[in-house]
Amino acid sequence: MITTSANFATNDTLAQKIIAMEKSALDRWGQGDPSGFLEISAEDVVYFDPFQERRLNGRSELKQLYEGLRGTIHIDRYEMLNPIVQSVESIAVLTFNLVSYEKEKVYRWNCTEVYQLQSDGQWKIVQTHWSFTKPNLKLD
Amino acid sequence: MITTSANFATNDTLAQKIIAMEKSALDRWGQGDPSGFLEISAEDVVYFDPFQERRLNGRSELKQLYEGLRGTIHIDRYEMLNPIVQSVESIAVLTFNLVSYEKEKVYRWNCTEVYQLQSDGQWKIVQTHWSFTKPNLKLD
Repeated sequence: MITTSANFATNDTLAQKIIAMEKSALDRWGQGDPSGFLEISAEDVVYFDPFQERRLNGRSELKQLYEGLRGTIHIDRYEMLNPIVQSVESIAVLTFNLVSYEKEKVYRWNCTEVYQLQSDGQWKIVQTHWSFTKPNLKLD
Repeated sequence: MITTSANFATNDTLAQKIIAMEKSALDRWGQGDPSGFLEISAEDVVYFDPFQERRLNGRSELKQLYEGLRGTIHIDRYEMLNPIVQSVESIAVLTFNLVSYEKEKVYRWNCTEVYQLQSDGQWKIVQTHWSFTKPNLKLD
């Protein structure tokens, strides 16, 4: 909710709006509905998550991934920790840690979302990066 | 090297400059010298990598981490795969996959860097997110 910078204008209203957009999409995601994120992802979005071989390029690749997950995700609740929005002009960079609870399992995430103000006045995601916080790696 | 978007101006010169800055810092990193990244990280940088419990906030936290790694990293060579720079006004978002070779080991990474043009005319990193590509997870 805070901006950390002398360079970035403090813009609490924008920060609150961006965080609310993200939470709204997360709420739908946690009920198995990926459309919340798809609706606010720009055509030229680039995307990383820990299950992809490479960066996905463009909303069509993201849509293909997400449609395959529709109905399969069930998050009981989540905590968005210490969201920061760094904003300047038409770009807002949202970063946070997330703890999600799914039945008995707890997942810890790092997330970076870059939102851009589109020419139609809507903010959309142009870059998504999800990763695990301190993943428990199997050593080969 | 390409921009993917109707919204983002195509700016090959800027893309090449940002990619060159990243590679120059990576070259020094691979020789055990974290100063390349520290010199181009802004005071208000936020930072994720897979070994941190949470997002690091600010260059002082990043410096503490990186100084502890000075002299310990040795990358024989790396390949930066399909870098894209999405740029608008004073922000450039660089994303790429990276394959790094360290003795017999190969590491695959996802990376997002957000660069911002500072008031002194220098581009600096305000957000870094490193994660493993398809980490081999130990299931508890």
